[in-house]
Amino acid sequence: MQSENLYKQYTETLRKVADIDYASAVLQWDMETYIPEKGAELRGQQISTLSGLAHDFFVTPAFGKILDELLKSNQTDKIKNKNVKLTHEDYIKEKKYSTDFVVELSNETSKAFPNWVKAREENNPSVFLPNLEKLVDLKRREADFLGYEDHPYDALMDDYEPGVKSKDIDVLFTEVRNHLKDFVKTISSKSAPKSDFLFLHYDKQKQWNFGIGLLKQMSFDFSAGRQDISVHPFTTSFSPQDVRVTTKVEENDFRSMTWSCIHEGGHALYEQGLLTEQYGLPCGSACSLGIHESQSRLWENVVGRSLNFWKVNYPKLQSVFPENLSKVPLEDFYKSINVVKPSLIRIEADELTYHFHIMIRYEIEKRLIENSLKVKDVPEAWNEAYKTYLGIDVPTYRHGMLQDVHWSHGSFGYFPTYSLGSFYAVQFFHQAKKDVPDLEKNIIAGNTKPLLDWLREKIHYHGRFYNSQELCEHITGEKLNYKYFKEYAEKKYSQIYNIN
Amino acid sequence: MQSENLYKQYTETLRKVADIDYASAVLQWDMETYIPEKGAELRGQQISTLSGLAHDFFVTPAFGKILDELLKSNQTDKIKNKNVKLTHEDYIKEKKYSTDFVVELSNETSKAFPNWVKAREENNPSVFLPNLEKLVDLKRREADFLGYEDHPYDALMDDYEPGVKSKDIDVLFTEVRNHLKDFVKTISSKSAPKSDFLFLHYDKQKQWNFGIGLLKQMSFDFSAGRQDISVHPFTTSFSPQDVRVTTKVEENDFRSMTWSCIHEGGHALYEQGLLTEQYGLPCGSACSLGIHESQSRLWENVVGRSLNFWKVNYPKLQSVFPENLSKVPLEDFYKSINVVKPSLIRIEADELTYHFHIMIRYEIEKRLIENSLKVKDVPEAWNEAYKTYLGIDVPTYRHGMLQDVHWSHGSFGYFPTYSLGSFYAVQFFHQAKKDVPDLEKNIIAGNTKPLLDWLREKIHYHGRFYNSQELCEHITGEKLNYKYFKEYAEKKYSQIYNIN
Repeated sequence: MQSENLYKQYTETLRKVADIDYASAVLQWDMETYIPEKGAELRGQQISTLSGLAHDFFVTPAFGKILDELLKSNQTDKIKNKNVKLTHEDYIKEKKYSTDFVVELSNETSKAFPNWVKAREENNPSVFLPNLEKLVDLKRREADFLGYEDHPYDALMDDYEPGVKSKDIDVLFTEVRNHLKDFVKTISSKSAPKSDFLFLHYDKQKQWNFGIGLLKQMSFDFSAGRQDISVHPFTTSFSPQDVRVTTKVEENDFRSMTWSCIHEGGHALYEQGLLTEQYGLPCGSACSLGIHESQSRLWENVVGRSLNFWKVNYPKLQSVFPENLSKVPLEDFYKSINVVKPSLIRIEADELTYHFHIMIRYEIEKRLIENSLKVKDVPEAWNEAYKTYLGIDVPTYRHGMLQDVHWSHGSFGYFPTYSLGSFYAVQFFHQAKKDVPDLEKNIIAGNTKPLLDWLREKIHYHGRFYNSQELCEHITGEKLNYKYFKEYAEKKYSQIYNIN
Repeated sequence: MQSENLYKQYTETLRKVADIDYASAVLQWDMETYIPEKGAELRGQQISTLSGLAHDFFVTPAFGKILDELLKSNQTDKIKNKNVKLTHEDYIKEKKYSTDFVVELSNETSKAFPNWVKAREENNPSVFLPNLEKLVDLKRREADFLGYEDHPYDALMDDYEPGVKSKDIDVLFTEVRNHLKDFVKTISSKSAPKSDFLFLHYDKQKQWNFGIGLLKQMSFDFSAGRQDISVHPFTTSFSPQDVRVTTKVEENDFRSMTWSCIHEGGHALYEQGLLTEQYGLPCGSACSLGIHESQSRLWENVVGRSLNFWKVNYPKLQSVFPENLSKVPLEDFYKSINVVKPSLIRIEADELTYHFHIMIRYEIEKRLIENSLKVKDVPEAWNEAYKTYLGIDVPTYRHGMLQDVHWSHGSFGYFPTYSLGSFYAVQFFHQAKKDVPDLEKNIIAGNTKPLLDWLREKIHYHGRFYNSQELCEHITGEKLNYKYFKEYAEKKYSQIYNIN
């Protein structure tokens, strides 16, 4: 009884912290969708204040005592046990942050963001580099006070992918590089499928409607979420009952809206699948960013760029845009959305060369944090890396180091989770096909519900109960294994590119 | 120097409180505009948490000490002096609220709101009356711990219109009643102007565009604000740099969008006119709800229902809806938008009978708070009052006591400010005409900027520096005087209704 009462107090505190964090998320969502121009400055300050408050509310000694006592008393419920254990770890970690640091970081990112926007517009890194300098400094300080065994970068990566170390990433990325370098070379020697019809005029409203249709088909619950327009598509959540996605509609590039819808939809299904009764608690939160990305990538690429998915959807698409697509056979359309080609912009990259974009960022970040690369030298290091890895020249900084928002948010250690997610996605889907009878037949018929049900049961409902490595073993019986992605990529692209 | 440092600490605390309150406002705005159906429940909880936090953050003993010391040390700056004095009063008042009470009230209103919606939909007061019962209880408790001299209602009204007592309202409303009862009777004996053309089909998108045009003409700054759609039009502000209005577009009633745009636009101009450097401080906040309403009413009625305003705008309107208006002369249009007729719905009432709607609510509220009327008897009391004051039968509760949202928000003591605002509006405009050369000539020419400049200088820039009574004297040289409204009403409506 005593312990139950303690658990109740524990829950109430965490729910309040969640209330503040989700409030922050609403403010951020609004900032990216509807805020008028002049509103951004004070909005940044409001978000900083909430960040500081959430921190202060969480790290009180009183809450520490509740956690200590809960740890001592053994909860009979394994979910409760896990919640307490994980929260205690979070608490120990969060205590290392001073309120001043939290507010300073939030302020610096608020200042950095508009300068990143400006630098991008003006194609002038020097507008943003002083902010980047400050943020890298702060992140180094953060790594130091958080502590690490091998590499300061590990301390930062732990925020996004708990338990994963840079030495593991190094091993993985060596395997990825070795495989993809040769495979992409082979592909590049073949003639590329036609794709010019993707860049004709596609009416924006019709695209929007088609995207909403895709989200509905994926079972995105519009009574517990919505889609809006933003410059950079993203997903955010204010509870499992209110999950928001955004998209970007390009009049002359049909891909932009379509695969951002499916990608963000994948993230959103995860958030909508978390348990509302675990609101604010670890077992009601997403496992890791890598696992989050596994959901978006699974839907975007493994499903959304598969021939099976488009068997039912392509005729619909043709009927919306007959002027562009009526004479393009399904097979050609399928190939066009899977063209592999080294390119400049990460978020537009195909699913193979994509990983070079990640490796480049990973290496630069690691060197910045370990102080073996100076901020002022990033633009050049970036351009060199694109030459080395992808064999292409970077014509403008806008197409180079200024393309991604992450650094302006102070997010260092985030990028590797994109690759991890892609590999998890394929490994999970491989398992889903084994577990779910007629999975692919259903997808062909336009029914992705069996897949969603499997994801819900295997991943969404567990929240952080397993960490990403445990989860992967729990679902597939083994650790993350690149061979699944390798096999998937070789099978898919050998067929598309006629490679024997 | 010491005192300057103290003032800085004072400012920082208040700005944080403002950050939390404005964050709450963003969450509320989203709840009324974009939230998906299932999101409302947890959103209510999130807002409650923020309310509790803002309260706790404000009433700390440490902040009390800062205020005490600032009060002792004399600030040379009269704005700073006033800020400290007002904040000290707010502090004393806010300290009377326990966090539990704040959270309980917020929770009860969160629960009451959906039941009010349901009761309205089902035309069934019993769905909402238990919530109303609880809220009235809470408000009685609130009046008790806040304290009052004559009547508990005064304690509640003080939140919205500081310094105004129910005995003053009683005197004022007696004068209003005596005047309007006879005058409306006289008007009712005359034949009503035609207005059927206002209820033809008006395309929604065209209406929306016309409304945006009106806001622009009023100098609403769209780089520091925006308009959206909601069930009930409202204005909210997240800083003077981000002020949001909403409107409601009715396909078969041109009035709804137009005058809600102008009304909310008037509120919004006030919020946009507050000084950003006084963000979070009393002198950067609106004076009172009565003064706020004076701004919306001034624009909506005194300007927006005047012949002068439509001289330039009506030809534009005719060109947007020629099918409905090309054959309707300006004079007829002007009369149609000023038809006086006893009716059921407050927000659709003309500017004369409107005040009976307010008096009815005021009397019911007062009796509820003093416990001379039971909640269960409100529906009947309401219907009786409409018969007595307006001579009409209330056919459904939806058209009766369930029409307004205020009680579900726990807002008791709010309604009188609507009438006060209307009377202030006319008195202010009377003064503006004296102070500003060619004010009306400019309005006729479509230029309302001289009026706005006057409002900015006389009202907006001062925030709470003067209370409403002081402000009125400061601007017009005398206290609120009903005679201005009386003269305005008699002149305007005698012309419209051919009364000699």
